[in-house]
Order: sequence, then C-alpha cells, then structure tokens
Amino acid sequence: MFRRMVVAGVGLLGGSLALDARRRGLVEEIIGYGRAGKNLRLAKSKRIIDDYFTDESEFPEGTDLLILATPVGVLAPISRAFLPRLEPQCVVTDVGSVKGKIVHELDNLFGGHALFVGAHPIAGNEKWGAHAAVSDLFEGRRCILTPTRKTDRKALEKTACFWRGVGAKVDFMDPDLHDKVLAVVSHLPHVAAYALVNTLGATKLDSVNLLDYCAGGFKDITRIASSRPEIWRDICVANRDAVGKALGNYIRRLERLKKWIDAGEAAPLDREFARANEIRSGMA
Amino acid sequence: MFRRMVVAGVGLLGGSLALDARRRGLVEEIIGYGRAGKNLRLAKSKRIIDDYFTDESEFPEGTDLLILATPVGVLAPISRAFLPRLEPQCVVTDVGSVKGKIVHELDNLFGGHALFVGAHPIAGNEKWGAHAAVSDLFEGRRCILTPTRKTDRKALEKTACFWRGVGAKVDFMDPDLHDKVLAVVSHLPHVAAYALVNTLGATKLDSVNLLDYCAGGFKDITRIASSRPEIWRDICVANRDAVGKALGNYIRRLERLKKWIDAGEAAPLDREFARANEIRSGMA
Repeated sequence: MFRRMVVAGVGLLGGSLALDARRRGLVEEIIGYGRAGKNLRLAKSKRIIDDYFTDESEFPEGTDLLILATPVGVLAPISRAFLPRLEPQCVVTDVGSVKGKIVHELDNLFGGHALFVGAHPIAGNEKWGAHAAVSDLFEGRRCILTPTRKTDRKALEKTACFWRGVGAKVDFMDPDLHDKVLAVVSHLPHVAAYALVNTLGATKLDSVNLLDYCAGGFKDITRIASSRPEIWRDICVANRDAVGKALGNYIRRLERLKKWIDAGEAAPLDREFARANEIRSGMA
Repeated sequence: MFRRMVVAGVGLLGGSLALDARRRGLVEEIIGYGRAGKNLRLAKSKRIIDDYFTDESEFPEGTDLLILATPVGVLAPISRAFLPRLEPQCVVTDVGSVKGKIVHELDNLFGGHALFVGAHPIAGNEKWGAHAAVSDLFEGRRCILTPTRKTDRKALEKTACFWRGVGAKVDFMDPDLHDKVLAVVSHLPHVAAYALVNTLGATKLDSVNLLDYCAGGFKDITRIASSRPEIWRDICVANRDAVGKALGNYIRRLERLKKWIDAGEAAPLDREFARANEIRSGMA
C-alpha cells in the first residue's frame, strides 16, 4: 500500500504502529527518525524499523507516508524541518492527542508540499519509548481523523485505510470538537490523576509512609500519572482552552462536594455518587 | 480458634472474610446477619455462611466472634441492637474504612458487654453483595488495627491472629491518624473519581456520546466510581474533617494547575507532572 514510511518518534505509539504496519503488510520499508540514537538503535535491533536517521537533512527520498508521532509541542518545528525534502504526493499523518489549531497550522504548513491528514488513535498507556511498542495496540480502538476543507480526499481515504489496516475503528470529527471531547475524556483525567498523586506526596502525617497504604483503587486511579510529563505538558498547553474549561467544571463540582462533606449532608452525596454509578455503568 | 462467628453484612468484605475464615480453619460455624433475605439466601447457597438471621433478637448464643461488615453509618445502631444478647467474652471487630470517632463510640457502647477491636483491612474493589465474595481477598493486604486505651489486650491479640490467619499483614495505628491517612489514600480518590465521571456526564457536546471515546485511562481512573454509593456517602460523612481537608488541598492544587494551563505555562506543568511521576514510581 505504501512503499516507504517514515516514523518520527519511535515510541509507544509510533513504534507500535510500525510493528503492525509491517506485520499487516501495509508498508514495504520503515525508517525511524528521532533525536535519541539509543532509542532508535533499540527500535532497529527489535526490527520495529529497518533503519533510522537523526538529521532532518537525511530525510529519505521516495517516502510516501510520514507518521508524526512526537509530543504535540514539536509537531510544527519537526514538520518545518522535513518540509524541503517532502515529495508532493507524500501522505502525512500524526497521532497527536490535540487537533484544533495544530491541524490548521499543519494544513497551512504542508499545503503544496505534501498531503496532511490529522489523526488521533484513542490507544496507548502510561509507558513510553521503543521498548513499550507492542503489536495490536490499535486493534478495536477508535482512531479519530479530523479532516478540514483543505484535506485532500484521496489522502484522507488512504489514511483511513491505513488505520483500518492496523485494526482501528475510524471516526471522522471536526478538529475543534475533537479537542473538546478529548479534554473531558482524557486530558482532564490525566490532570486530575497527577494532582491526586501530588496531593498525597505533599501530605505529611507523622512517620507514616502513605504509599504503604495505597490499595488497588489508588493505584488504578493514579496509573496514568506515570505518563510521560512532556507529552501531557504539551497537550495541556496546546488544548488549554478546552482543558481549562473542563478543569473549571471539575473544580466547581469538587467544591460542591466539599460543601456537602463539610456539612455532613448525606443525601446529596448519595445522589451524586449514585449518578456516577449510573454513568459509569454505561461505559463499554 | 473461634467457635461461632456472626458476620453482620455478608457482602464483598464480610462474605470474603467468611470464606477464608472457614477455609483456613479459623472458625467452626458462621452465621450471617443482614436485612436483605435474598443476599443471605445466596450466601448460604454458596456455603459462605452456614445459616442466617434477619431479626436482631435471634442473635445466636455462644457467639465468640462478631464481625461488623456493614456501611459505617449503621455500625452503631446495629451494635446497639445486638448488645443485649452479646456475651462478655465475645470479640467484636469491624472492617470499616473510618475509625476515629466511630471507634470511640463503639468502645463506649461495647464496654462491659463484649471486647471491641477496631479493624480496617485495606482490601476490596468496586463490587458489592455476597456474589462478589472471593477467597484470598486479604492475602498480602494490610489490615490496620486501631487499639485505644480501652481495648482489651487479649482481644487485640486474638483479632490480630485472626487477620493474620486470612493472610493479612497486621498494622497498628491510632484511630484518628488512620482516618487522616485513609482520607488521602482512599477517600479523596473516590470523591475525585465520582466527580470526574459526573463532570463527563454533565458535558454535552453536539451529538457526541462521550462514553464512546473513553480509553483505558478514563476507565481505570473511574472504576472506583462504580463503588456502592451508600458506603462512600457514609465514609465521607463519618470522616468529614479529614476528607474535607484532603479535598481542600486537592482543589487548591487543581486551581494552581488551571492557572498554569490557562496561561499556557509549560515549565511549571512539566515540574508538577514529573513530580507525580516520581512519587508514583515509589508505589509498590
């Protein structure tokens, strides 16, 4: 389907995508790009990639698929560095958790140089680096494509096929709507988990090591606080409007709960918790 | 070790404890108590209990171990109802997530009637009812005993032996300190998860069903929001001072994060997330 795929950022998402793209016969050759030679050497030794380069000027000729799998904060600078070497029929797609302004920026940046299609696979976990790459990470997961009026229809179709090829269920969504949705279902929970762990970290109680008393519930709720800081810093900054709004809603809800708890009001707490029960039970 | 054990509340904790107490030969006979005949019949059919009663006046003679495994809000009223029939050498212990005032109340209530020892096994999950009872729920988990100056030393020793007998690692802690610790590591995370789910539930975005886009992270973080509302309502009310304080600290931290996010300040977000990473990595 594609001849030569370049993966910029051979980590959990980029590396897993490379593994599946090869295994499912979607590409002939896979070249990695990154700054950390050690990670790229590991990826090559694990046959995730066939080869790699660390200097943008070595971007390989004949590349017809470029996957941008870096933290969202460096999508634009890296794209700009590749630009002079991209061929006009090269399909460029990403795996970023924020779309909106970034998609519009990349639309303008690639216009005429290559065919950009924004993509966000709803998959992943708290691990990172090429050693975290696994097969079937996208199997049965949603992948949201965020076409705009500037998106080339053929490139969109090829991108959708590619994601379906690695097992994802492809959805289409407006980039700004995508960001509002993800702010609530993903970005806010990460911020909430980081803050929860730090609240524990900042609490000193005699000589008790609080970590000794964390049961499964705390571990589950804070697992995502092990996620890579620079990824989530970039996401929060890039999607600050929607994340800030969701966080504001969350804080207001917690303040109301605090009022009830301080006053020992059982009935509204019961209602609030029961409502959460009901919503949670609707989750697949 | 014990001849006749009564379990008041044959749910996840009470039922699992009954299963292990029998399997490990810690008791000869197990009698369940509860209000829901259906749950008790199920428990009996699953051989979790040998028999049951639903009227406090039928409390069985010769009971030498009473396990209180009800929501914390009804510990005192149920204890009061059993009081006239308790024998003075009966050891009474509980599994409640809140100690502090409740332990002092039960100390006074049982004084002279039976030998009370406060206990809290750090085990459990979001399920409830006798069908949720499983073997080895307490294996390797901590069980915090909260003796006071009024606690009978021999009863304390027997209770510690009993919990060790079902595989728990026994700790001793002051009841008030217990409540401050648990407010941070358990009660606050539950409130945070309930509020997170309800924030999602209250967000309407065009025709998007937000639940469709919840990945593993959201599901993990909100799993505990499936916990039984009345349990957590009671815990929040009974431990309102410590939970309110922990929740206040959490809200202040979220407000600071919101300020940074609104302003797009990457550096402090990075530091905050990296600190959470570090604390989380110290978790067993």
